[in-house]
Amino acid sequence: MNDLKVGPGRRFNFCAGPAVMPETVLEQARDEMLSYQGSGMSVMEISHRTPLADEMFEEAEANLRRLLAVPDGFRVIFLQGGGQLQFSMVPMNFLRRGEVANYIVTGHWGEKAIEVAGIEGRAHVAWDGNAAGANYVRVPEDDELDLEDGAAYTYFTSNETIQGVQFGSEPAASGPLVCDASSDFLSRPVDLRRYGLYYACAQKNAGPSGLTVVLVSDEMLEGQKAGLHKMLDYRRHADAGSRLNTPPMFAVYLFLLITRWIEKDMGGLDALAERNERKAQGLYSTLDDLGDVFATHAESSSRSRMNVTFRCVDPSLDAVFLDQADRRGLMQLKGHRSVGGMRASIYNAMPEAGIAALGDLLEEFAASVRAGKLRAS
Amino acid sequence: MNDLKVGPGRRFNFCAGPAVMPETVLEQARDEMLSYQGSGMSVMEISHRTPLADEMFEEAEANLRRLLAVPDGFRVIFLQGGGQLQFSMVPMNFLRRGEVANYIVTGHWGEKAIEVAGIEGRAHVAWDGNAAGANYVRVPEDDELDLEDGAAYTYFTSNETIQGVQFGSEPAASGPLVCDASSDFLSRPVDLRRYGLYYACAQKNAGPSGLTVVLVSDEMLEGQKAGLHKMLDYRRHADAGSRLNTPPMFAVYLFLLITRWIEKDMGGLDALAERNERKAQGLYSTLDDLGDVFATHAESSSRSRMNVTFRCVDPSLDAVFLDQADRRGLMQLKGHRSVGGMRASIYNAMPEAGIAALGDLLEEFAASVRAGKLRAS
Repeated sequence: MNDLKVGPGRRFNFCAGPAVMPETVLEQARDEMLSYQGSGMSVMEISHRTPLADEMFEEAEANLRRLLAVPDGFRVIFLQGGGQLQFSMVPMNFLRRGEVANYIVTGHWGEKAIEVAGIEGRAHVAWDGNAAGANYVRVPEDDELDLEDGAAYTYFTSNETIQGVQFGSEPAASGPLVCDASSDFLSRPVDLRRYGLYYACAQKNAGPSGLTVVLVSDEMLEGQKAGLHKMLDYRRHADAGSRLNTPPMFAVYLFLLITRWIEKDMGGLDALAERNERKAQGLYSTLDDLGDVFATHAESSSRSRMNVTFRCVDPSLDAVFLDQADRRGLMQLKGHRSVGGMRASIYNAMPEAGIAALGDLLEEFAASVRAGKLRAS
Repeated sequence: MNDLKVGPGRRFNFCAGPAVMPETVLEQARDEMLSYQGSGMSVMEISHRTPLADEMFEEAEANLRRLLAVPDGFRVIFLQGGGQLQFSMVPMNFLRRGEVANYIVTGHWGEKAIEVAGIEGRAHVAWDGNAAGANYVRVPEDDELDLEDGAAYTYFTSNETIQGVQFGSEPAASGPLVCDASSDFLSRPVDLRRYGLYYACAQKNAGPSGLTVVLVSDEMLEGQKAGLHKMLDYRRHADAGSRLNTPPMFAVYLFLLITRWIEKDMGGLDALAERNERKAQGLYSTLDDLGDVFATHAESSSRSRMNVTFRCVDPSLDAVFLDQADRRGLMQLKGHRSVGGMRASIYNAMPEAGIAALGDLLEEFAASVRAGKLRAS
């Protein structure tokens, strides 16, 4: 496997999103900037109704279908509006007044999703990871779920980017699952047969911000509500091949390059999942070994392979750590304000060398703390 | 004024959108692709919650306010979803059930806008440019407008991209104007004091597809409806400084570069409007001189300075013309299927050299037609 490095002048970027992208993808985008495939025009300057655009969309969809082994009877849609527009589009399309949908809330994004679902119908909390101040440190066991029968769908967030908790497998629910997979999309294989709708914004593992990828089953679409606004109607977008209006051409182009990179440079999703597992376990194991200095946020069983959330046992040292990281070129490690501490987002495009560099810093920092050499700034 | 040229391997691109961009802007985007402002990260890899992003948004907004002389009491919002999501957001935010809004329909996009407005309230056709098969060849005179009193707003499309008809000045209406300025945004000055809301997708004059710029007055926002979905609520986006969720960073970055280009390279909006006028009049004047071979779609008084729609008097020659244009590197001149013939989109970034090249072809083609040397392919 061809592990990527950072080139001269580049940094290790642990941002939760917009996140690090494969350097070879950025280089190709740079080299083709003024002439896409020798057309004499940038990919941002060509009509979405041309053969060049058709080819781009067709290959992007075909690559995604192959990578995720998307079952027959699923539509692939490229949209705008970010993950949060999906928080609205899902209930707008599928939750009728008087009906119920189950929401499993394991963090910040689940909270936001259930908030707007209530505008359309009844959004039932099937599990609340923050009940009694539990602070979203884990995902539920199946027998903890309080699922209502006959729900339009059961919604969950496969990976909570902010808290760093991730489902290892799908929650048990009858009826279709709807999943916000924004921050672990294309990081591992997934069996889509259990899903009615599976979506992700691109800016973690799949491209730049400004693009959202939606997989929706025909069966789910059969239950769609009537009277929808055209631009908020999954079926209309699907029937128009994601070109109901002008799509974000540059973002789709980068998505295409990234699917190629996953397949050709990373060896496909199985190999990539293995590499992601190795990266995450390496980091968690270092943090566990230094348990007198660092504490992780998520419980072991629910730890995210994408967002490693941790803090210093002495919270006054968080800022010192972040400052040292910055000075070493380990960028954007600050945790979200609702969790505090640090967050290392280690998406597909984070090289193993970046994990090693962060591991070195963790160990040196811990040694300094143990030696009493550090104090809060 | 520094008129841009096309570099080696580049073509003259007359696409209606996504459209030609200034070459120096593309070059800067290329050069900064792997390290935005020396940060060691692409602009697509940095968090929208960092000082670098703050500066980018602040300058983009400040430049726009200066260029358009945006009055106090207006909010600037950068959104996703294209112009068409605005067709829905405008009535979702401002048209109550039982209320009426006036719609002046001068072409394809006005048609689409009124279609979805009817989901929210009553959308009244104040003028229909296609009445009695008139085929959208002009904008109305003020005394032709059938405006309902007490309307929530009066909606119009300042330039119809497909038909190539453009308002020279605002229609007379009491109450706030709402304008889809997608295809003449930043091509000329505008007096925003008459508007409640003024919006444009970026992919004509202001950037790549995937970004929509909205200017909305505080007064208009006071009349906003309650119970909106967060992502479809102008006020929420405005209050969050266009970072209610992750914005399309690369598109905003290009918008910023283009505002700088307008100001520094093109000499501001007055100079640019003059240049656009000269480009359009040059082309129309050539077409008028060759009136035995070519016919324009729009009536003289309503001709667009952005999209020049025309056809061969002998319609069987359209395909021959397009083929010749293509072989000369004059790209994407085919008219929209609903109008037929040709459309030369000559936005801000179309160099005067491109107009000259098209003019040469028009003249040579007409000479061949007159000499009986051409036949339909």
